[in-house]
Amino acid sequence: MRAIDLRSDTVTRPTAAMRRAMAEAEVGDDVLGEDPTVRRLEVLAAERLGKEAALLVSSGTQGNLVALLVHCGRGEEVILGDESHTFVYEAGGSAAVGGIHPHPIPTGPDGELALEHIQAAVRADNLHFPRTRLICLENSHNRRGGAVLHPTYMRRVREVADQHRLAVHVDGARLFNAAVALGLPVAQLAEDADTVSVCLSKGLCAPIGSLLCGSADFVREARRARKMLGGGMRQAGVIAAAGIVALETMVDRLAEDHARAHRLAEGLAEMPGIRICPEDVRTNIVNFELHRPDMSPSALTSRAAELGLLFFPIGGARLRLVTHHDVDDTQIDAALLILQRLLGSAPARSSGN
Amino acid sequence: MRAIDLRSDTVTRPTAAMRRAMAEAEVGDDVLGEDPTVRRLEVLAAERLGKEAALLVSSGTQGNLVALLVHCGRGEEVILGDESHTFVYEAGGSAAVGGIHPHPIPTGPDGELALEHIQAAVRADNLHFPRTRLICLENSHNRRGGAVLHPTYMRRVREVADQHRLAVHVDGARLFNAAVALGLPVAQLAEDADTVSVCLSKGLCAPIGSLLCGSADFVREARRARKMLGGGMRQAGVIAAAGIVALETMVDRLAEDHARAHRLAEGLAEMPGIRICPEDVRTNIVNFELHRPDMSPSALTSRAAELGLLFFPIGGARLRLVTHHDVDDTQIDAALLILQRLLGSAPARSSGN
Amino acid sequence: MRAIDLRSDTVTRPTAAMRRAMAEAEVGDDVLGEDPTVRRLEVLAAERLGKEAALLVSSGTQGNLVALLVHCGRGEEVILGDESHTFVYEAGGSAAVGGIHPHPIPTGPDGELALEHIQAAVRADNLHFPRTRLICLENSHNRRGGAVLHPTYMRRVREVADQHRLAVHVDGARLFNAAVALGLPVAQLAEDADTVSVCLSKGLCAPIGSLLCGSADFVREARRARKMLGGGMRQAGVIAAAGIVALETMVDRLAEDHARAHRLAEGLAEMPGIRICPEDVRTNIVNFELHRPDMSPSALTSRAAELGLLFFPIGGARLRLVTHHDVDDTQIDAALLILQRLLGSAPARSSGN
Amino acid sequence: MRAIDLRSDTVTRPTAAMRRAMAEAEVGDDVLGEDPTVRRLEVLAAERLGKEAALLVSSGTQGNLVALLVHCGRGEEVILGDESHTFVYEAGGSAAVGGIHPHPIPTGPDGELALEHIQAAVRADNLHFPRTRLICLENSHNRRGGAVLHPTYMRRVREVADQHRLAVHVDGARLFNAAVALGLPVAQLAEDADTVSVCLSKGLCAPIGSLLCGSADFVREARRARKMLGGGMRQAGVIAAAGIVALETMVDRLAEDHARAHRLAEGLAEMPGIRICPEDVRTNIVNFELHRPDMSPSALTSRAAELGLLFFPIGGARLRLVTHHDVDDTQIDAALLILQRLLGSAPARSSGN
Repeated sequence: MRAIDLRSDTVTRPTAAMRRAMAEAEVGDDVLGEDPTVRRLEVLAAERLGKEAALLVSSGTQGNLVALLVHCGRGEEVILGDESHTFVYEAGGSAAVGGIHPHPIPTGPDGELALEHIQAAVRADNLHFPRTRLICLENSHNRRGGAVLHPTYMRRVREVADQHRLAVHVDGARLFNAAVALGLPVAQLAEDADTVSVCLSKGLCAPIGSLLCGSADFVREARRARKMLGGGMRQAGVIAAAGIVALETMVDRLAEDHARAHRLAEGLAEMPGIRICPEDVRTNIVNFELHRPDMSPSALTSRAAELGLLFFPIGGARLRLVTHHDVDDTQIDAALLILQRLLGSAPARSSGN
Repeated sequence: MRAIDLRSDTVTRPTAAMRRAMAEAEVGDDVLGEDPTVRRLEVLAAERLGKEAALLVSSGTQGNLVALLVHCGRGEEVILGDESHTFVYEAGGSAAVGGIHPHPIPTGPDGELALEHIQAAVRADNLHFPRTRLICLENSHNRRGGAVLHPTYMRRVREVADQHRLAVHVDGARLFNAAVALGLPVAQLAEDADTVSVCLSKGLCAPIGSLLCGSADFVREARRARKMLGGGMRQAGVIAAAGIVALETMVDRLAEDHARAHRLAEGLAEMPGIRICPEDVRTNIVNFELHRPDMSPSALTSRAAELGLLFFPIGGARLRLVTHHDVDDTQIDAALLILQRLLGSAPARSSGN
Repeated sequence: MRAIDLRSDTVTRPTAAMRRAMAEAEVGDDVLGEDPTVRRLEVLAAERLGKEAALLVSSGTQGNLVALLVHCGRGEEVILGDESHTFVYEAGGSAAVGGIHPHPIPTGPDGELALEHIQAAVRADNLHFPRTRLICLENSHNRRGGAVLHPTYMRRVREVADQHRLAVHVDGARLFNAAVALGLPVAQLAEDADTVSVCLSKGLCAPIGSLLCGSADFVREARRARKMLGGGMRQAGVIAAAGIVALETMVDRLAEDHARAHRLAEGLAEMPGIRICPEDVRTNIVNFELHRPDMSPSALTSRAAELGLLFFPIGGARLRLVTHHDVDDTQIDAALLILQRLLGSAPARSSGN
Repeated sequence: MRAIDLRSDTVTRPTAAMRRAMAEAEVGDDVLGEDPTVRRLEVLAAERLGKEAALLVSSGTQGNLVALLVHCGRGEEVILGDESHTFVYEAGGSAAVGGIHPHPIPTGPDGELALEHIQAAVRADNLHFPRTRLICLENSHNRRGGAVLHPTYMRRVREVADQHRLAVHVDGARLFNAAVALGLPVAQLAEDADTVSVCLSKGLCAPIGSLLCGSADFVREARRARKMLGGGMRQAGVIAAAGIVALETMVDRLAEDHARAHRLAEGLAEMPGIRICPEDVRTNIVNFELHRPDMSPSALTSRAAELGLLFFPIGGARLRLVTHHDVDDTQIDAALLILQRLLGSAPARSSGN
């Protein structure tokens, strides 16, 4: 029997429609700019995000890295959250590949970077300091339980950025989740950012690919940076074809993932030793803390896995469940039963038996 | 009517068998190491190349860049040909991404780097010098008309490398062409190299992907470097499925491309103002020089394009034709007719009319 | 009349003895390893710091940069304080020059990095993460008011480092101040660090130079890194001669600077709107906060400068005074009078006039 | 007895006047821009070189590295000679520190880069290529026997540069030697370059330091880059004072070094097995080739050293002698005697004894 896999929405498999589209895709050499399917996807993505142009890249990490390379020269600085995907999970590429100095600041519980922290992090013009060039935000926020940044917050960050002539990039790996949760067009969430990257291969189920969107000039430079990283692909239309299906047919259904995540959160909230606020779970990521003398996060993870339920601990007392297309209501029920079995009785009571 | 496209073998489209394989591929999250089709491809490639392990990357450029990143630390030096793909066409990534100092030496007309030039380029142990770590070769050689490096040459380079404790990497984007031309198993051409990259998306017709092969330890580090570049892909099995078809069914037929290239070369050799040695054309690349008072390389390129024949000038008097799966004998005939029409009569005679 | 310059101990001028030593120094080409005075200084410094070897570099920033370059390869990570000199004032060189990923963690008010923060910052072995290689500490701590790290704290950091096989580097620009404040040999403060940099041109009054100390192997590599930065100097004995005077004759007198700093702190503590704990002032740096409705830090700085007293605001409400060899008791008295004149009466009372 | 040291003009020691100037120098904190002697030197150097501004750096290598960092962004390309000091002797810093891709081209026997080679090396605007930004020349040319670039050549390079909007930097470590040899003001040799670095610590005998000269904007950025490398020095006036003496009093006497080099060349030309053209020796560097069955370059070097004459082999059959202030006519006579003794009789005859 197949495990209930709540490790990440990256495990989603391409749908039948995607596989069909890939098999039938009209393709060409995209390095020569001749793949019609890639072009269609890039035009479509740019439209959806409200930007002039878009570039297909092979991953969210590559989308963010290319954005940083174009926004920041050698030795320049990016302000980003200390819990951001870019600072935590992208292998230090900003510094290693780009010679860019990351300046992490505290990430609020709602995924926001406080404006006063951003202000304080902007460097004065002084030869002791790297030059600040960029503010990076993440929407929805992976390590903050899928928290969503609202356009009004984006507007205030934009004002700070304008005041210091900084660019704003949004790691929007799950920006469509944020848009669905807010009931707003995704372009509205990208409006105050110069550039935004979105992933096709998470909740949207495409097998491979992200899109980096921005001005036409920006994307021209991004294309060069992508080539330098070896990210230029030949008949990439086979990937892009699945991406078009993802953008056109898989966005609205994210609401189902969010509802399932909420059910998981409500179920967890009733279990002893679990710390979680179900109302904070607005998208498809369920972060919770485990505080039990009888079980560590890694023990819970192992024991759940034995029972066929997969998820990840993410540091300290924290664990994470992610809902997605390949998990249905029945599996959510089963997941809650497994968690109930492992966590349902309070440790004190059980020790009394 | 479709143009006769001799610009590159990168323009090849996936075959019907590849499309079928992609549509049916069993996939998983390859970043988590769970894509069975990627695993199969990596095992298959490692076997073919005679190495312990292999890594799927998104392009030949990425394969070479990852190899350089693993072989060379910051500020270390790679000896490579001044006409090598890595020095000429990879956007300076060795230095830009890796802080690696390229040390180009002359590329022989046969694609070889002279052993005495390699010896002279190896740095002594002195704080004025970067440390030499790596020798890069290219087989077959793109800008040397598809020239082939023989295993006996590889053995001699290996001896120089061993003498100085250097690693050897082969940019084998078209290594299968070389193997077919020599009538040798491809593993024999890789035997004296520590690492080798091979492309699936050139003559072998897969839409995307290259494989970087080496020891298990090397590939482990290469996987990290790939992740840093954003080259980690999720359900990459859709790409790998086509790659398996490429490796299993498309290698032997390269001999047809070679035969067609030879026919092109023989045809060109008879045209006035063309400099070419047909016997040097051993694989699928036909380099020739145009020396005519009445036509520049770019003029010839434009006029041929108007007649439906596409190819690239590659600097100075040089031009390049590349044969591949999507060009058949009839098209080669047509290509020669077009060239004959443009170049067939000697300029002196024609000016006499 | 000369201003009372409390901006930094970097403004100290060479003493008459230093000038004499420089004029008479026996010199040679240090890039060839032939400057006897540089050798003497390096041996002396290594002995004082209890390390095998030492390297003269042109600044504290260069000492720290070279240390990072030797400890960390491209894409590796250094854990350091968010208020450390290296993260704040060294122009992002770790990332820009070395491709090293800085991982700043909170700096305690006592200049310490909490052990649990260090533990949490160490990366697991996972391809999403850069590899952690180094912990950097700063003793005494510039932006923490000259706070001193005690050897017992160093020992605990060492244990964490050993547990994860990390190296420890101490930015000891003012390590001699820390040693004098603790009444301990400076070597004892360096004992649990792999490497340490100390400055000659701050409290010790030499015009130029720092020393980077560590194992013989480390210093051999550091010499290469210094050369790459263009930090190799020819007849550097002229600088080293002053450095020898500094190490041999200027260390003990730092106690005078510390006493004067303490007097400044006690004077400031009595002024309305000033926040300072005199008992925290243990070396030559006096940090205080200004909280007055009638005067901003920059206004105070400007008005004091008009009266002949120089110092720097260092962000937010904070200002900094630094005592050193070129400021005597009379000048400290005068400085306090000026501050008293500007800050002596409470803002409420003065508004009553 | 002191050896006759013809290894390099870097071994020159500061003169008595320099030592006096250093001892008496008025100094301040140059990182704060307050060292009056450094300012005087920078103004003086800018005037001499005909540029708006100048920056004191700690070595020629640092001057060139800073120039490259300011001219070229990450991943951009510099065209330079394959025998240039920057490509050969500066530890790969361009790539390692700056992520700059070096594009070496052949160095002519006269130290010139052929214009057609420069033209061919300039990259087209194509995402496969790094962007070309800079041409570096070297005058006089270290590994080309002190060969001198004439202003008419510089003018032609300027035209090529302008055609492609490239900058031109001159590594003028020995530019004063070139100026004296040509009998032209040094500014005339720098006129067609955007930036130029000159060394104080070679023929001009100052103990430490080089000057990087260019526009005011360029020098402002150079100051930032220098700080990032840790090249900012505090009371650098002690060094600058010697530099002022060097610029004001030591330039004209370089003619004596040139005369002595010429005498050495003429003497060598008469010895069997030596290949040298005395008329090519125009400055203070004497390159010659040794072709003798009875003695290798390293053997000659060792045996001369035993007799008290020091010089370096520089690769293959080549050796190098350098004249300078600390070698007088008597020592040149003695040097020739030693060489005569080692090389004076032809190998054939000697084998007959």
